[in-house]
Amino acid sequence: MASTFLNEYRFFDPNEKVRNIAFELYSNVKDLPIISPHGHIDPRLLANNEPFPDPTELIIIPDHYIFRMLYSQGIPLESLGIPCVDNTDIEKDHRKIWKIFADNFYLFSGTPTGVWLKHEFSEVFGIQEKLNNQNADKLYDLISEKLKTNEFLPRTLYKKFNIEALSTTDAASDSLEYHKKIKNSGWNGKVIPCFRPDGVVNITAAVWKKEIEKLSAACSTEINSYETFIKAIENRREYFKSIGAVSTDQGIISPYTHQLSKEEAEKIFQKALKGSATDQDAFLFTANMLMEMARMSIEDGLVMQIHPGSMRNHNQIIANRFGLDKGADIPLPTEYTKNLWELLNKYGNNDKLSLIIFTLDESTYSRELAPLAGHYPAMKLGPSWWFHDSIEGMIRFRQQVTETAGIYNTVGFNDDTRAFLSIPARHDLSRRVDSNFIAGLVAKHIIDFEEANQMSKALAYGLVKKAYKLN
Amino acid sequence: MASTFLNEYRFFDPNEKVRNIAFELYSNVKDLPIISPHGHIDPRLLANNEPFPDPTELIIIPDHYIFRMLYSQGIPLESLGIPCVDNTDIEKDHRKIWKIFADNFYLFSGTPTGVWLKHEFSEVFGIQEKLNNQNADKLYDLISEKLKTNEFLPRTLYKKFNIEALSTTDAASDSLEYHKKIKNSGWNGKVIPCFRPDGVVNITAAVWKKEIEKLSAACSTEINSYETFIKAIENRREYFKSIGAVSTDQGIISPYTHQLSKEEAEKIFQKALKGSATDQDAFLFTANMLMEMARMSIEDGLVMQIHPGSMRNHNQIIANRFGLDKGADIPLPTEYTKNLWELLNKYGNNDKLSLIIFTLDESTYSRELAPLAGHYPAMKLGPSWWFHDSIEGMIRFRQQVTETAGIYNTVGFNDDTRAFLSIPARHDLSRRVDSNFIAGLVAKHIIDFEEANQMSKALAYGLVKKAYKLN
Amino acid sequence: MASTFLNEYRFFDPNEKVRNIAFELYSNVKDLPIISPHGHIDPRLLANNEPFPDPTELIIIPDHYIFRMLYSQGIPLESLGIPCVDNTDIEKDHRKIWKIFADNFYLFSGTPTGVWLKHEFSEVFGIQEKLNNQNADKLYDLISEKLKTNEFLPRTLYKKFNIEALSTTDAASDSLEYHKKIKNSGWNGKVIPCFRPDGVVNITAAVWKKEIEKLSAACSTEINSYETFIKAIENRREYFKSIGAVSTDQGIISPYTHQLSKEEAEKIFQKALKGSATDQDAFLFTANMLMEMARMSIEDGLVMQIHPGSMRNHNQIIANRFGLDKGADIPLPTEYTKNLWELLNKYGNNDKLSLIIFTLDESTYSRELAPLAGHYPAMKLGPSWWFHDSIEGMIRFRQQVTETAGIYNTVGFNDDTRAFLSIPARHDLSRRVDSNFIAGLVAKHIIDFEEANQMSKALAYGLVKKAYKLN
Repeated sequence: MASTFLNEYRFFDPNEKVRNIAFELYSNVKDLPIISPHGHIDPRLLANNEPFPDPTELIIIPDHYIFRMLYSQGIPLESLGIPCVDNTDIEKDHRKIWKIFADNFYLFSGTPTGVWLKHEFSEVFGIQEKLNNQNADKLYDLISEKLKTNEFLPRTLYKKFNIEALSTTDAASDSLEYHKKIKNSGWNGKVIPCFRPDGVVNITAAVWKKEIEKLSAACSTEINSYETFIKAIENRREYFKSIGAVSTDQGIISPYTHQLSKEEAEKIFQKALKGSATDQDAFLFTANMLMEMARMSIEDGLVMQIHPGSMRNHNQIIANRFGLDKGADIPLPTEYTKNLWELLNKYGNNDKLSLIIFTLDESTYSRELAPLAGHYPAMKLGPSWWFHDSIEGMIRFRQQVTETAGIYNTVGFNDDTRAFLSIPARHDLSRRVDSNFIAGLVAKHIIDFEEANQMSKALAYGLVKKAYKLN
Repeated sequence: MASTFLNEYRFFDPNEKVRNIAFELYSNVKDLPIISPHGHIDPRLLANNEPFPDPTELIIIPDHYIFRMLYSQGIPLESLGIPCVDNTDIEKDHRKIWKIFADNFYLFSGTPTGVWLKHEFSEVFGIQEKLNNQNADKLYDLISEKLKTNEFLPRTLYKKFNIEALSTTDAASDSLEYHKKIKNSGWNGKVIPCFRPDGVVNITAAVWKKEIEKLSAACSTEINSYETFIKAIENRREYFKSIGAVSTDQGIISPYTHQLSKEEAEKIFQKALKGSATDQDAFLFTANMLMEMARMSIEDGLVMQIHPGSMRNHNQIIANRFGLDKGADIPLPTEYTKNLWELLNKYGNNDKLSLIIFTLDESTYSRELAPLAGHYPAMKLGPSWWFHDSIEGMIRFRQQVTETAGIYNTVGFNDDTRAFLSIPARHDLSRRVDSNFIAGLVAKHIIDFEEANQMSKALAYGLVKKAYKLN
Repeated sequence: MASTFLNEYRFFDPNEKVRNIAFELYSNVKDLPIISPHGHIDPRLLANNEPFPDPTELIIIPDHYIFRMLYSQGIPLESLGIPCVDNTDIEKDHRKIWKIFADNFYLFSGTPTGVWLKHEFSEVFGIQEKLNNQNADKLYDLISEKLKTNEFLPRTLYKKFNIEALSTTDAASDSLEYHKKIKNSGWNGKVIPCFRPDGVVNITAAVWKKEIEKLSAACSTEINSYETFIKAIENRREYFKSIGAVSTDQGIISPYTHQLSKEEAEKIFQKALKGSATDQDAFLFTANMLMEMARMSIEDGLVMQIHPGSMRNHNQIIANRFGLDKGADIPLPTEYTKNLWELLNKYGNNDKLSLIIFTLDESTYSRELAPLAGHYPAMKLGPSWWFHDSIEGMIRFRQQVTETAGIYNTVGFNDDTRAFLSIPARHDLSRRVDSNFIAGLVAKHIIDFEEANQMSKALAYGLVKKAYKLN
C-alpha cells in the first residue's frame, strides 16, 4: 500500500547502499503469509467473529504496552478503564479515555508501540495522520464507524492480514471450546492452541488447588498424587494435540532444571496438596516439571517453549486492584549455562526434542544462549522477546546471536501479542529489521545477495514453519 | 564559535541525511541554558571568585578521569602532583607536570576526556592546536596568562557558559557557608546544594563516629539514638532546602531497600555507636535509610537520587596514600528488580516521590531499569553515568532505554563533574549525541521531525528542569 | 591480492566517508608482520614440516568452530570423522565428510567461520567460488593437489603468511621437543611455547595425579609437597623461558584470587595427593595459584594471561565419546571487580607485572574490565575472545572498552586458533575491523587522521609486540 504517512523505506539504514539492498530483500518477503506460533489472542474473537466494540476497547484496554506507559507518567489505570478485580470504580466513558490517550500520544515517540500504532492506524483504518488533541474525536468516530462494517470483523481481518496459522496460549484445563467452534464452523482459518501448564505447576500459588481441581475435572480423574498429576498432564497434552496444538509453553522465573526421583516428587506434591509446600519445594518441582515436559515432548512431538526470567506482578498494589498482566512484570538476571545443564545433558542431543528458549536478559545472548544453541541439536533460540521485541532489541538479538549460532539455530519471528490489530504491524516491522540486518551483511561484503535472499526468507517464513512443525 | 579545529558536525553520523537532521536539531538546542542538577564543583570557587592558579591546578590535579589514565600507564601519581594524605613528597613543579601530561596526551585518543579537553582548549582558551611535546610550554604560558584576566574568573565563566542552575553535592553536616556567601553576595548565579548523607549512613566506616559528631554539632542536638539521628537528618534536609536544595543523593553499593522496625533500627544504631556494628548491620541500615529517605522526600518534596554499584577505593595503596576519589572506584554487577522491590511497592505509586536511579551496570538498562521506569510513576532514570558518560555510553543508554521507557521517563543530562571548565564541553557533547540519536529515528522514519524537535528540546532542557523541580 | 571474490572494502562501513578512511588506515597496516602471541597450533607441524594430509583433515576435523555448528543442526560428529576416545566407529571417507560440509556450508552465512573460510579458500588456495554441493568434489581435488606441493608445506605457508612470531600453548610438563627441533633446524621462523599449568593446578580433575607425575618426571624431582610443587612450577617456567616462552596462560572458571598461607596450601595439597580434595579446596587452590603465578611473573618477567569463565565439557555425552575441546565449552557469568581484588591490591601497582585478562562475559567490558585496566598499571585487556572473536564481537569490544581504558591498555589482536590456515584470515579481519572502528572516530571528528594512523598501527602490531615483550 503506497503511503506517504508510512515511508516505504522505514526502519532501513539511511545509507543508500544498505537501504536499497534491504528494500529488495524486504520486497521478496513482505507478502509471505504470517505464521504466528506464539501469542495471546483470545480464540473467542475468531470463534464468535463479532464486531469489535469501540476504539478504546480494541486498542487501549487490552494492551499493557500502552497503559503501562501512561501509568508511568502518573495517569491512574482507573481513568483508563482498566477493569478492577476489587470493584473499584473505573472510567466508563470510552471517548474520554481515548482523549487521554490522544493527549499523551507523544509519550510513545521512539517506542515500538508508537510504531505499531502508526501502522495500525494507517494500514488497517486508512488514517494518515498522527493522533492528537485536535483530531481525537474525529478519529474515534472514524474508527468506530469502520468497526461496525463487515470489513472489520475478526475473520475478515485475519484473511486481510494474510495469516496462515495463529497459535493462542491456553491453560492446561482449558476446554478449548472456541478452538473447536472455529474448527467446526467450516471457516478455513488455522487457529491452534498451545499447552501452558503454569497454573498447575506453580504449587505455592494461591490458585494452585483450584487449578488442580479444574485439571481433575478436565481429565475426569481424581488428581491425588504426583503420578495421577503427570498422567493428567500427558492426557491434556494429547487432547491439545488433537485440537491442533504443536507446542507447549512454560513461564518460569528460573530455568533451573533437575529431575526429582518419583519419591521426591510425590513427597513435594503431597505437601502441596496440604498447602504446606515451601518456596524451595516449588523451585524443585518446577525444575522437575521442565525435565518431565521435555520427556513428554520427545514422546508426543510437541515443541517445547520456555519463557524464563520475569518477576510477575512486581507492583502488588496494581496486582491486587487490577489482576495479572498489567505491565508490572519486571525482568530478572537469568542464568542458562548451569540451569539448563541437566536437561540438555539428558535430552539436548536427542533430535526428537525441539526446545525453544526465550530470554529477557540480553546479556545472555552472546554469553550463554548462542553458544548453547550453536552446539546442542535440540535447542533453538526464540526471537527477541517482550521489551526487546523492538527495532533496537531485534538488532541486538541478531548482532549478538548470529555470529555464534547462525540464523539456522533461531526460529524466525513471533508476535506474542494480545493486540490483534498489531499482528501485521509487528510482523512487518520484524521483516524490515531482519531484511535490513542482512542487507548490512551484504553491504559489508560478509555474505552475497544470494545468501541474503535465502536468509531473509528463512527468517520471515521458513524457520518458524519448520521449528513449530507447521507443515 | 566557528572553528576548523572543532568541526561543526562533530559526533554526528557520517551519513549526510542523519548528519543534516542532527545538525538542525542541535542548532535548536545548542544555545539553551545549561542546567547542571548534579555535580561536584566546589562552591568556594564561585563564592570567592578568585582566579584559577595555573593550568595544572585547574585541569590535571582535580580530575581523576585524567590522572587515572596516566597512572594506568605507569606514571606515578606523586609525579603528577596529586596531594597525599600520608605526607609523601609530591611533584611541586606544575610546569613539569604539564609536560608529562603533554607527552602522554595521545593516551586520551578516542576517550571522552580527549573530547572534553579539545573543547575546553578551543572554546574556553581559543587554542586551536593539539597539546604535544612541542607546544606544551607555549600553551602553559598562554593559559596561565588568560587565567589572570577577569574574563577567566569563575563567575564570569559561569555566565559565559550560560549556566542557569548548578547543584553541588554536600555532606549532611555541611554548613553551606559558601552557598550562603554566594546568595548574600548579590550575584545572580544559581548555585544550590544537594544533601548527601553517605558519611552518616555508612555505620561501619572508620569516620562514621566523627561524621555523627559533626552532624550533632550542625543540628545543635545530641545524637544518641536512632530517633535523634532521624530527626537530625530531617532537620538538615530542611536546612538544605532553605538554602535552595532541590535534591538528595546517596552513593551506595547495593540498592537493596528494606524497612526496619524502629526497634531493629535502634538496636543496630546502638551497636554502631559502640563500634560493634557488623557488615550485615550496615547493609540493613543502608537499606532502611533508603526507605526513610524516600519517606522524607514525599514529605519535604526533595528529589531523591540513588547512585549504586561502585566499589569505592578498590586500590588500597592508592586510597591510603592519596585518599578518596582517585580513579580507583570500580563498578560491580548491580540488581534492581528485587532490591528496589520494597521501596517501589511502598512508595513507587506515589506521585509525590521523584526517584532518580543511576547505574554503572549497563546490562540493567534494558533488563531492569527501563521496565521499572516504564511502569512506576515515581521512578525516573538518570543519564548514563561516570564511565558511561561518553559518546558510545550515551548511545547505548538511549538505544537500550528509549524503546521501553520512552524519553519522558528519563531526566535529561547531568555532568557530575569536578572539572568546572568541562561543564560546557560535557553538555555540548550530550546535546550533540542526543540530537544525533533522535536524527537517526527521523532518518529511519520512526518519528517525524516535529516529534524529534520536541524530544531534542526535552532532552537538552525541559526534562531536567521538570525532574529536579527547577522552575 | 586483487580479487573480485573478496571485495577490497569488505567489513568496512558502507558509508563512503568512513569506508575510504578505513581503507587508507587498513592499507597502512595490512602488510605488517603477523604476531600471534596466543594460540593452539601444534608445534609438530612446523617442526616436521610435512604436507597436510587432505582438505578434511586440514580444515574440518581440527576445528571445533566448524563441527559444532554442523552438530547443532543434527549432524553426528561420528559422520564428520571426529576421533573418538571410546573407540566408536567414525567415518573414514574424508571425501564423504567434505561433501557433508559442502551441503551444509550455508549454515556459516554471517558467521566468522564463514568469513575465515572464504579468505582461506581465496587467498591460500586461489579458489574464487563458494563451496557447494556441485563443486565439492572439484574443490576437494584441487585443494588435495595443492597440499602435495612444496608451496603448501607448513614452513612455506608460515613465511607466506608473513608471521613474525607464533606462540603455541603447552602443558607444564611438556618436553617442548618440537620447539627445540625447530630451533635446532636452522629455520628462522620464531615458534615459542607458552606455559599453561592448568593440568597440574586443577587438583580435583581425574587426570591430576597423572599430570603431577609427568611434572615430577619433567623436573626430575619428587613432588610430594606444596613446596616441591611450587619449586617445580618455577623450574618449568624457567625451562619454558629458556626455549623462548614470553608468557604463561591459565584457563579457569572463576578469576577469584586469594593468597593461602603456606600451611593452608600444604594441607590442601596433601588432601589432593590422597584424592580427597573437595571442590572448595580446588577453588581456593586455584585462587592461590593465580597469586603465585603473579608473584613468579614479577620475578621471571613472563607475561601472565588469564582466560576465565568457560564451563568446559558442558555436554558430557560428547566429552565422554570425543574428549576435550569439542565445541561444548559454554561461557558463564564472570565477576572481576571483587575476584581480582586481592591480586590487584598485592601486585597491580607493580610495573614488573604484565597481566592480560580475557573474558567471555561481554557485560564486564564496560562495567569491570575497562575501569580496572584504566587504572591499574599492571593490567591490560586481551582482545575479544573465542565466540566474540568476530566482526560484531570486535566492534562491541572496542566500543565498550576504548572510552574508559583507551586503546593503550589493550594488547592488539591474537588469533587463539587451532586452524593454521585461518591465521592470516583472522588477522586480516581484525585489522579491517579495527581500521574501520578508528575510521568511524575520524569521520565523527572525535580524533584526527594522524591519531588514527598511530592507533591503527598500534592495534595491528605495536601493542602486541610491546605487551608480550617480543622485541
